[in-house]
Amino acid sequence: MNIVIAQSGGPTCAINATLAGVYLEACKHPEIEKIYGSRNGIEGILHERLVDLRTLLPDAKQVDLLCRTPSTALGSCRVKLPLAEENTTPYETIHNALKAHSIDAFFYIGGNDSMDTVAKLSAYLTSVNSPIRVIGIPKTIDNDLMYTDHTPGFGSAVKYVTTTLAEIAQDSAVYNLPSVTIVEIMGRDAGWLTASTCLLHHNGLEAPHLIYLPEIPFSTERFMSDVRRMHASHKSVIVAVSEGVRLSEGGYAADDFQSGENDAFGHKYLAGVGKYLENMVRKHLGCKVRSIELNVMQRCAAHLASETDISESLQVGACALCTMLEGKSGCMMTLQRTGDAPYDITISAVEAQRVANRIRLFPQEWITPDGNGVCDEAIPYFLPLIQGERQPIMRNGMPVHFIL
Amino acid sequence: MNIVIAQSGGPTCAINATLAGVYLEACKHPEIEKIYGSRNGIEGILHERLVDLRTLLPDAKQVDLLCRTPSTALGSCRVKLPLAEENTTPYETIHNALKAHSIDAFFYIGGNDSMDTVAKLSAYLTSVNSPIRVIGIPKTIDNDLMYTDHTPGFGSAVKYVTTTLAEIAQDSAVYNLPSVTIVEIMGRDAGWLTASTCLLHHNGLEAPHLIYLPEIPFSTERFMSDVRRMHASHKSVIVAVSEGVRLSEGGYAADDFQSGENDAFGHKYLAGVGKYLENMVRKHLGCKVRSIELNVMQRCAAHLASETDISESLQVGACALCTMLEGKSGCMMTLQRTGDAPYDITISAVEAQRVANRIRLFPQEWITPDGNGVCDEAIPYFLPLIQGERQPIMRNGMPVHFIL
Repeated sequence: MNIVIAQSGGPTCAINATLAGVYLEACKHPEIEKIYGSRNGIEGILHERLVDLRTLLPDAKQVDLLCRTPSTALGSCRVKLPLAEENTTPYETIHNALKAHSIDAFFYIGGNDSMDTVAKLSAYLTSVNSPIRVIGIPKTIDNDLMYTDHTPGFGSAVKYVTTTLAEIAQDSAVYNLPSVTIVEIMGRDAGWLTASTCLLHHNGLEAPHLIYLPEIPFSTERFMSDVRRMHASHKSVIVAVSEGVRLSEGGYAADDFQSGENDAFGHKYLAGVGKYLENMVRKHLGCKVRSIELNVMQRCAAHLASETDISESLQVGACALCTMLEGKSGCMMTLQRTGDAPYDITISAVEAQRVANRIRLFPQEWITPDGNGVCDEAIPYFLPLIQGERQPIMRNGMPVHFIL
Repeated sequence: MNIVIAQSGGPTCAINATLAGVYLEACKHPEIEKIYGSRNGIEGILHERLVDLRTLLPDAKQVDLLCRTPSTALGSCRVKLPLAEENTTPYETIHNALKAHSIDAFFYIGGNDSMDTVAKLSAYLTSVNSPIRVIGIPKTIDNDLMYTDHTPGFGSAVKYVTTTLAEIAQDSAVYNLPSVTIVEIMGRDAGWLTASTCLLHHNGLEAPHLIYLPEIPFSTERFMSDVRRMHASHKSVIVAVSEGVRLSEGGYAADDFQSGENDAFGHKYLAGVGKYLENMVRKHLGCKVRSIELNVMQRCAAHLASETDISESLQVGACALCTMLEGKSGCMMTLQRTGDAPYDITISAVEAQRVANRIRLFPQEWITPDGNGVCDEAIPYFLPLIQGERQPIMRNGMPVHFIL
């Protein structure tokens, strides 16, 4: 039996741990011979750019380094398969490539776009009576996949964002002047990562004083009125805002600042809502104001990886291998929480079709009635996900990574 | 004997360790009674906002937390004293406030602007035959103070910048597409922090492929030609650029993007050279391009503090107290390197007047002849400064800080 593993979509700190999880479990099963990695997601299969993971990961030390390496060690892609009813060519190419290497199972680690690939590809393979199995494994810092309590990669992103926001709050309070600090956080459609900044309140911080999520239509008037009100009682106001907040009249708040380019899935590249709001505050309030974009660091700061996240990512990879061995295909692995305190999870699977292209929003009941904050009820949800640290391997005072 | 300590200028991860260093040494000397902290630098003395550090730091645990806390625990300011020949009023106010609290020595932790205050104030006090001593203690992530091998705070900033750049390099390489990633790094006048990214080469990374410092006039034509040439041989090109690079025709490269505001010292607030170059690359090369501003994180990311930096900051604080007890005044503490390997330093003092308002540039001989890189000869200089880690105190998976 031969298998291939690929990674897709935006990087996270945990997607390599999931790769390691599938790999390590596969090594335990003598019936599995070849363990391939596909370079740049499905592209590596389309163009037959496969690597032998047993050669690349010869010992526990290399696997450990891989688990502490951010981003996708095999590379990523943003390829979207056409509908098989309209164009079977890429499906035939993939099928032939898999057959050429006698591959019995394909593991795709990715977000909701990748689950679209898993669902379509497994449906096609079934339709041509191929026994090749396709298993999806979730990852995304956006935490917006359906049917899973949370997604691997999210916990580490939360750990980075909350740690950094605590430090920014320290930095922002130094001058004896009124100031506004706007921190722009990733999340195109769902506000999970931005919402997670409420965790700082659990450690006694007042920051962030205001939190804006894409789930609530964004009004610049209400924003300015919120900031003015906060300023009356707080010298240094910290605002956490999702890159994806939408103006109530529709469209992204960041429209003025973005290039308007779309990626292969039709998503707009967002940038600049923080800068947009910074300029607005400067113009209308005239106080010291700064905007900070956490940019790619929130998805690649492996030096702040959550041990819980990395350990779960390994587990979910291992379970994916076992699920495939049970004969399943066309599914995505999911995490179910069995409790907050003590926190625990179980891992199972759901049809990838049900996850593909869908978005799980942050629950309305955890957003404060005035739409500018997150309720304390959300804290027990977020808290377990950032527990523990998996430190990087250091050389010369700097982290080193697994590089293919 | 009573003393007062104040912090000034932009935050760093090490300025609180220096405060702790002065405090801990003062506690060892029974002749020292009151140990005050002044809120918001010299402002706290002008407006008599003093705090009792013995009360605020009652035990080793609090002092340890202080050392792991970024930014300035006492707050900061950007007050510049007028020339005493033109206006003695603020000097008299300070002198009266110091006398009112029977203060014998004033410690000012800051950058070259703060050393201007140290020089002027000590000269004034001498001129009025006051025995009150004034000691300056360096800090700045910019590393641009004269007569010191390096400045406390710099090593931790280097550790943050190099760690983050290594992670960004991982993140930037995932797609099988040509891309340019521009990382904008602090340094208004001197390129030390940007230059330190050459340390990644010591760990075998090719990133950053291009490094631009304020010490070399910046030409957009040469920049584009450099990027084009790098692209011919590297899929993912990483550029480290100082916020303070200057166009060869004069002015900051970031001029188009900044608000043009000046701070109390006449410095321009810089922002946006990264975004400026990003737009240029997009327009002329058309490839995937992203700019990343490391923003305040590079000065406040205490979770990545260098143990060497924090430990030296404590030492320099302690030496400042001893220097004062020797009867000195109007001087700034300095670090002299006695060797790279093994690395060691000694601490002494220089007249603050010689440091005030002056800038130490990154050496020309460590810049590559074509002005777009840093020579390997600079590595032994930077390397010792980032060794070791001083981890933050964690609670609930997030760092906690000393808050006054």
